[in-house]
Amino acid sequence: MLMRAPLDIRSLVEARRPGYTLEAPFYTSREVFDLDLDVIFGRHWIFAGLEAEAPTPGDYRKIDIGAQSVILVRGDDGDMRAFHNICRHRGAQLVTAERGRVIRFVCPYHQWTYKRDGELINARQMGADFDKSCHGLKPVHLRSIGGLLFICLAEKAPDDVDEMAAAIEVRLAPHDLRNAKVAAQMDLVEHGNWKLTMENNRECYHCGASHPELLNSFSEYSVGFDPGAVSGRQQAEANAYVEFATKSVADWEACGIASKPVEHLKGRASAFRTERLVLAGENESQTMDSKIACNKLMGTITQKKLGGLHIHTQPNSWHHAMSDHAISFCVFPLSPDDTLVRTTWLVHKDAVEGTDYDLDNLTKVWKATNSQDAALVERTHAGVKSSAYEPGPYSPFTEYQVDDFVTWYIERLGAYLAEG
Amino acid sequence: MLMRAPLDIRSLVEARRPGYTLEAPFYTSREVFDLDLDVIFGRHWIFAGLEAEAPTPGDYRKIDIGAQSVILVRGDDGDMRAFHNICRHRGAQLVTAERGRVIRFVCPYHQWTYKRDGELINARQMGADFDKSCHGLKPVHLRSIGGLLFICLAEKAPDDVDEMAAAIEVRLAPHDLRNAKVAAQMDLVEHGNWKLTMENNRECYHCGASHPELLNSFSEYSVGFDPGAVSGRQQAEANAYVEFATKSVADWEACGIASKPVEHLKGRASAFRTERLVLAGENESQTMDSKIACNKLMGTITQKKLGGLHIHTQPNSWHHAMSDHAISFCVFPLSPDDTLVRTTWLVHKDAVEGTDYDLDNLTKVWKATNSQDAALVERTHAGVKSSAYEPGPYSPFTEYQVDDFVTWYIERLGAYLAEG
Amino acid sequence: MLMRAPLDIRSLVEARRPGYTLEAPFYTSREVFDLDLDVIFGRHWIFAGLEAEAPTPGDYRKIDIGAQSVILVRGDDGDMRAFHNICRHRGAQLVTAERGRVIRFVCPYHQWTYKRDGELINARQMGADFDKSCHGLKPVHLRSIGGLLFICLAEKAPDDVDEMAAAIEVRLAPHDLRNAKVAAQMDLVEHGNWKLTMENNRECYHCGASHPELLNSFSEYSVGFDPGAVSGRQQAEANAYVEFATKSVADWEACGIASKPVEHLKGRASAFRTERLVLAGENESQTMDSKIACNKLMGTITQKKLGGLHIHTQPNSWHHAMSDHAISFCVFPLSPDDTLVRTTWLVHKDAVEGTDYDLDNLTKVWKATNSQDAALVERTHAGVKSSAYEPGPYSPFTEYQVDDFVTWYIERLGAYLAEG
Repeated sequence: MLMRAPLDIRSLVEARRPGYTLEAPFYTSREVFDLDLDVIFGRHWIFAGLEAEAPTPGDYRKIDIGAQSVILVRGDDGDMRAFHNICRHRGAQLVTAERGRVIRFVCPYHQWTYKRDGELINARQMGADFDKSCHGLKPVHLRSIGGLLFICLAEKAPDDVDEMAAAIEVRLAPHDLRNAKVAAQMDLVEHGNWKLTMENNRECYHCGASHPELLNSFSEYSVGFDPGAVSGRQQAEANAYVEFATKSVADWEACGIASKPVEHLKGRASAFRTERLVLAGENESQTMDSKIACNKLMGTITQKKLGGLHIHTQPNSWHHAMSDHAISFCVFPLSPDDTLVRTTWLVHKDAVEGTDYDLDNLTKVWKATNSQDAALVERTHAGVKSSAYEPGPYSPFTEYQVDDFVTWYIERLGAYLAEG
Repeated sequence: MLMRAPLDIRSLVEARRPGYTLEAPFYTSREVFDLDLDVIFGRHWIFAGLEAEAPTPGDYRKIDIGAQSVILVRGDDGDMRAFHNICRHRGAQLVTAERGRVIRFVCPYHQWTYKRDGELINARQMGADFDKSCHGLKPVHLRSIGGLLFICLAEKAPDDVDEMAAAIEVRLAPHDLRNAKVAAQMDLVEHGNWKLTMENNRECYHCGASHPELLNSFSEYSVGFDPGAVSGRQQAEANAYVEFATKSVADWEACGIASKPVEHLKGRASAFRTERLVLAGENESQTMDSKIACNKLMGTITQKKLGGLHIHTQPNSWHHAMSDHAISFCVFPLSPDDTLVRTTWLVHKDAVEGTDYDLDNLTKVWKATNSQDAALVERTHAGVKSSAYEPGPYSPFTEYQVDDFVTWYIERLGAYLAEG
Repeated sequence: MLMRAPLDIRSLVEARRPGYTLEAPFYTSREVFDLDLDVIFGRHWIFAGLEAEAPTPGDYRKIDIGAQSVILVRGDDGDMRAFHNICRHRGAQLVTAERGRVIRFVCPYHQWTYKRDGELINARQMGADFDKSCHGLKPVHLRSIGGLLFICLAEKAPDDVDEMAAAIEVRLAPHDLRNAKVAAQMDLVEHGNWKLTMENNRECYHCGASHPELLNSFSEYSVGFDPGAVSGRQQAEANAYVEFATKSVADWEACGIASKPVEHLKGRASAFRTERLVLAGENESQTMDSKIACNKLMGTITQKKLGGLHIHTQPNSWHHAMSDHAISFCVFPLSPDDTLVRTTWLVHKDAVEGTDYDLDNLTKVWKATNSQDAALVERTHAGVKSSAYEPGPYSPFTEYQVDDFVTWYIERLGAYLAEG
């Protein structure tokens, strides 16, 4: 009898070589993908969306993570809650639209009816013995951090999220994302594994040749370089950059704008990194001319030159908040070979399109950058499928955050496997 | 070494909770789907089509059930036969069209030639020693019950089909489906598991909110209700319905129209249910105005108000025969997630479209109803995929036939597993 | 616990019945398909393309075999080389176009740069300790036989290819394919297993009823027949054919045109067959009127009536070289159910379209024939999926080469399984 040996994920986890890309099955196999959904997306805090997507009581947003469908809904009390999108009768999905507004959730199959807080209040034809209180909507952990909504599908959610929340809340406070408005949202499917999407985001080694639009506001010195391979001119530029960045952070902090970097990218469940970077050019925003795209500044902000507050959370998000707008990126695995990247542009809630901002100007840089990244992810995914692929070395200067992401990922799988 | 435990179908079968929907893997897993094809569709009598689809010797209909392809063909002797649609030489399919007429089956690959009764009569280049008599078409069990064609792919077919045949033959006799004409046929792919399609058909708890067209001729009291939750007015209506239905059945029986209900939905291989229901409104037919759609009545029928003879067979069909037309529904699994529903409208063989009936009027109710059901099945299938799904309770008043279907299904899997 | 027994390929290999088609799993199962890619396509010499596809230094052709992607490139020294199409850094594919011309291979992700001979010459940001010499492109075995390019993905390639090379080189020499020009190339996806595509090519039992265009230049007596089933007239025609073919081969050999048949279809790794067949009709070329399609004859050829030099290689190619043009066919498995057939028409490198040849006239016969074959393969694949399919007998007169192909295939799997 001949059969393939099942994939030995445990050995692959143990054998991971630091500083190198993952073995191919981590990017390509169905078994690892299923494990990623169970362990990485099933037991960690996952970025799911924004409070700004559901400003009014009854507003909901449907989120799909693998086969799980979750409703994020603003309750009558103004709080956000999350529920599994399943009727407790025959299992029908309560909502199929991506977003909407409801008074109650009425299942369209047999009209079982739930309040916005999940309580089952009507189930006809079930008889007098039927106990409605046992058949409410199943809740999902939800936490709003500065207007960013994180959910956890596990029974018990990691509690080290508190430290992440503390760092992010104070930094996002001036941008007041809870009172921001969604100016635009774009879903893009990248034809590659979700970890390649994340790895691509965690370095700018590729930016120089691929992202001309982004480089209008991005300094090449902000993302690492090999000090042994720069010219005298480059060294002088780098020194100037560091000096300017250091002074900017000190100035912002002096104004009460929390800006100091915090980095906890591994060794914990809820891993993150945040830093307020100075920008290139006019140093105002991530736009084609590096100037603000929205005349009405965010939240309580009064100065245009606030750089870009970068927030990276593991496993699946990154966010850039400037003085005038913020951009939020969210990654959902669709299959071993396909990944959804959702990009949301936020402005002050009172900003008016056409008056305060031009939508094309606001979104141009990242529409282009996302498209360029999708092509890079796709060709990398195609390559790692080859049996001739073997893990390659990360640059110690420009790709350490990629290495940290991969290290965190392997740690999390390892912790899970150690349990079983 | 880490691998998922294979799905433990035996334990899932044993653990089924009566009165509740199935565990998710029954609806979603490939393993169960393969077992369904082998056990449910491979060892039971499956509704495959109608004699009326092949009225003339040489007429054939191709039926695909999973990877099995079967030819239903009317022979020179006027009898229907069924064969596997495979040439005995290299395995090519003899026919690829859905229907047609042949003198002989000639394989288009190397021209091996078979008579309509399956005999191989020509195989050139095979030499003098080749024994054609060992290479005839492989037969499939076939049984016509009142013009409904049932096949069984197993070597030995369940013989309790006799009782089903006896009950259905006498009830269908006045409608004479063997001499009916196919007025229309429609294939619809529902994006859900085939058992959700069947469950949806086995109750009308959902009809009130979903099927406005169907409700023109369907009494809500014919399909069960909670007596403890009706108003005084409703109770009076229900009583009136029961009185009318009882009298109608007695009147029909007195005229020689077999109408008494028969129900054998579990505890046997060939399970079925039949009942002649009175209709709502004008009480003539399942049309928008509840009046007959075809002026030429079926078979030997002379009275318009014959109600609707309902026939349910497990695992995969239901049929409604009225005085003027009949509608036949057939379910074929395509994948764990996709199901073919084939609907056929039959009228008297001499009825002329445009003169005796208007095709749009004839088909309008069920075209709409099928489409509504497909949406309900799809959203239920999407829901049960979630790991948060758990079996929910059926209504004891309106969903007992769903429960019986599921119980029969579990019994049949259980009987198979007990063999191995 | 219930689970399907894994497919017992070893037993299926051992149980193969000579003279009969394969058991269904060889054509339909994912496990066998994966094994085919590993063993048949991973350890044998695979026909991959033609030197004529990359005439100039820097010209490359990308070839995909399963998940493997290979670059065939002409080097600065004029030699062809093959490399895995993967950057050694993060695994991105170096090229995604089917063909092109490069000075160097520059990975578009982070600009690692390789010479045409695979040497890594630039990898920025990797630091002074990084050893470029360990990170060159991974080579693939490549061998040009008379301009036909064969690759082997295994570490050690079968060395019995020498005998195949000797036989083919001398026969192709007059046609000088190395200096031919690609006049046309067509990719066609057949919806069937790759072995059914190959089996279809290895017999002309099906030609009479399916290939009217091809039969203009193909004698039915050249491909085997049952001597016990021919009429007196047919016997006389067959005798005349044999006499003519024997004389033609003798005449060609006398002119220095190697033409004697060589057949090694089993019992070895690198199996092949070659024969110069006389043609029907005008006996010049495989065209609608059986006359040459290109006025400029190939290579050193001066006489139009050179028949058709047939070359069959296992597992995946066949080639027909006439006096005026050659046609090369290449088979790549895409999935258990889908196969790519690539057809390339070659003429003398100096032949000018519109002047020396008409493209439609050149390609008409095989465009039609390929399309007809695709339909036959598709219906056979659909048939063998049925559980009612069982292996059928090959004609001993017209299908012995099919049997030899299947025998070779089973031998190669058997040899592999004996190792493990």
